[in-house]
Amino acid sequence: MDGELSAGKLRGLMTLASGDGVFRMVAVDQRPPLFAALTRHDGRDPAGLSFDEVARAKALLTRTLAPHAGAILVDPVWTHPTALGGIPGRTAIISTLEDYGFEAVGGERRSRLIEGWDVAKIKRAGAAGVKLLAWYRPDVSEDTRRHQEALVERVGRACREHDIPFILELLVYPLPGEDADSADYQRRRPALVLGSVGRFADARFGVDVYKLEFPADLKRCRGFHGGAFDGRERPELFTLEDVRGMLTELDAITPAPWVLLSAGVGPEEFRADLSLAFDAGASGFLAGRAVWLEAFAAYPDVTEVEARLRSAAVPYLRALSAVASAARPWTAHRRFGGAPALEGGGQGWHRRYGA
Amino acid sequence: MDGELSAGKLRGLMTLASGDGVFRMVAVDQRPPLFAALTRHDGRDPAGLSFDEVARAKALLTRTLAPHAGAILVDPVWTHPTALGGIPGRTAIISTLEDYGFEAVGGERRSRLIEGWDVAKIKRAGAAGVKLLAWYRPDVSEDTRRHQEALVERVGRACREHDIPFILELLVYPLPGEDADSADYQRRRPALVLGSVGRFADARFGVDVYKLEFPADLKRCRGFHGGAFDGRERPELFTLEDVRGMLTELDAITPAPWVLLSAGVGPEEFRADLSLAFDAGASGFLAGRAVWLEAFAAYPDVTEVEARLRSAAVPYLRALSAVASAARPWTAHRRFGGAPALEGGGQGWHRRYGA
Repeated sequence: MDGELSAGKLRGLMTLASGDGVFRMVAVDQRPPLFAALTRHDGRDPAGLSFDEVARAKALLTRTLAPHAGAILVDPVWTHPTALGGIPGRTAIISTLEDYGFEAVGGERRSRLIEGWDVAKIKRAGAAGVKLLAWYRPDVSEDTRRHQEALVERVGRACREHDIPFILELLVYPLPGEDADSADYQRRRPALVLGSVGRFADARFGVDVYKLEFPADLKRCRGFHGGAFDGRERPELFTLEDVRGMLTELDAITPAPWVLLSAGVGPEEFRADLSLAFDAGASGFLAGRAVWLEAFAAYPDVTEVEARLRSAAVPYLRALSAVASAARPWTAHRRFGGAPALEGGGQGWHRRYGA
Repeated sequence: MDGELSAGKLRGLMTLASGDGVFRMVAVDQRPPLFAALTRHDGRDPAGLSFDEVARAKALLTRTLAPHAGAILVDPVWTHPTALGGIPGRTAIISTLEDYGFEAVGGERRSRLIEGWDVAKIKRAGAAGVKLLAWYRPDVSEDTRRHQEALVERVGRACREHDIPFILELLVYPLPGEDADSADYQRRRPALVLGSVGRFADARFGVDVYKLEFPADLKRCRGFHGGAFDGRERPELFTLEDVRGMLTELDAITPAPWVLLSAGVGPEEFRADLSLAFDAGASGFLAGRAVWLEAFAAYPDVTEVEARLRSAAVPYLRALSAVASAARPWTAHRRFGGAPALEGGGQGWHRRYGA
């Protein structure tokens, strides 16, 4: 029933959130972006990276950042098996389900899952949440849409079956012939983002938390387009009021608590994105590269990477956490009418539960 | 393999412990002792207590104590379904498996499980540990011993199957004709306690944490026997050196980290028990009545019970937590040779795990 949560989902969400009901989460599950960071200095083919090279970088990220986050999103291939002991008990774990490779059909992306990994294993390993990234846009072919929707629905069902929160990440992408950096694409992106979320609002997908991208590029918004974040001037495509309107709509069509992802934006831009998202009702963040990417400019000097993570990434994460005090607690989402109730709670619950 | 832990058990133990590897846990799963506390003022038959009366008391205990503990032990009948929302995400949950009723055969106790509750449901609900109390003494009939050992083995197997820490509580008890308060019984109790633990040391029981009673009555120990804890003088049965020797032996025969339970001893005595146990290698406490029973003297004035919980039980719990800084971190137990390793960790773990 809406407004109610099963015990595992309720407990999982309480574990993922801080005491004030806000999600302050960090992602270290990235694969291609980290591979790129590890090969930038020598121009190697990322395919040549060894398991140990990647695992060591992941373990470093995990042990430096996890103590400062309410939850950490890890991948099961490199991070989970090598860095589990470095995640404090009070920092919840989310595990990634999708492979970083996807099937490209005429440029349309069809996600696939990591082979040998599934929701049952995530639950078994003691994680508090399952994350699936679904590449999406509402204007792809019926076949691609069906593929992506069937996948999300299947994962949602598995999360219900194993009673663990389902965090759905949606990302739009350029099709062949589109230039992600063009004004034309950026002008259309808000509709793609909003249209995608609308598609996955249905209860049949069983999403507990939406991990969403900021719908517009703030670097193309009046007041910021002059190069506020990266020194580069761009055509003005939106006003701040436009952006606020998009966020309000995003909040209105999202049927469960949502958090902001950082994708590739820099630290200052992400902080600005976050403030706007919190004004609109976001319940926190799940931030990745905005937190840790800059430190890897020092790679392969691992000592220096660690020093930068400690001197810059950790303080930045703390700053985001402070800003997030203005977020809407997940329990205050309209879905729960004030406070989430336990599904089937009260006398006899222990017999009914999971039976 | 010994020294290694599967992912769910490793994560579960890290979640149950504080950051320093010490277990600071509180138990509110008691049933007959709480029933007694709720009927003392009017002499009612505890069987006449309504679900709501018990559930309200449990919820009060949970919301006042859980924020000050690393983990809280709850029962699935009254506490879990009514107080789940009152347990902070950073406080881990342990769920009780055994019914408070047991089958008595010639005075020998044969445990039974709560009907409609099991390890699968505990894992599903997002708890971090399973607790089973087994009444035991090494000198009971073969049938009773087999019954209890088969039960523990079965639960241990289920905990492995669902990859969740198994916390085994052992309690000795007087047989017909024995007076628990007699010098004779108390003189024999250390051997009963040590003999019981020895029985369950075998790896086939799959115990991850032992929840043990203090092997000797400190009220009958030289220096305390004059009434130090309750004003009542008793014959001196042991010296402090005797008691230290028992604890050293207890630690030596316990093949995994162990914590001290408070059973019915008062707050001051439990604090003294704890210090001695930590000297011998205990990794923390799982304390119940010593923490909360005194507050219930004010029942049915619930406002006053809550005031006493806040003014006395919480500070006491904090004091225990401070004392526990002297405990041995669970990770330092000889079982792990310094640091627990992930079973099957490294490359390919995600495929092997749980397959």
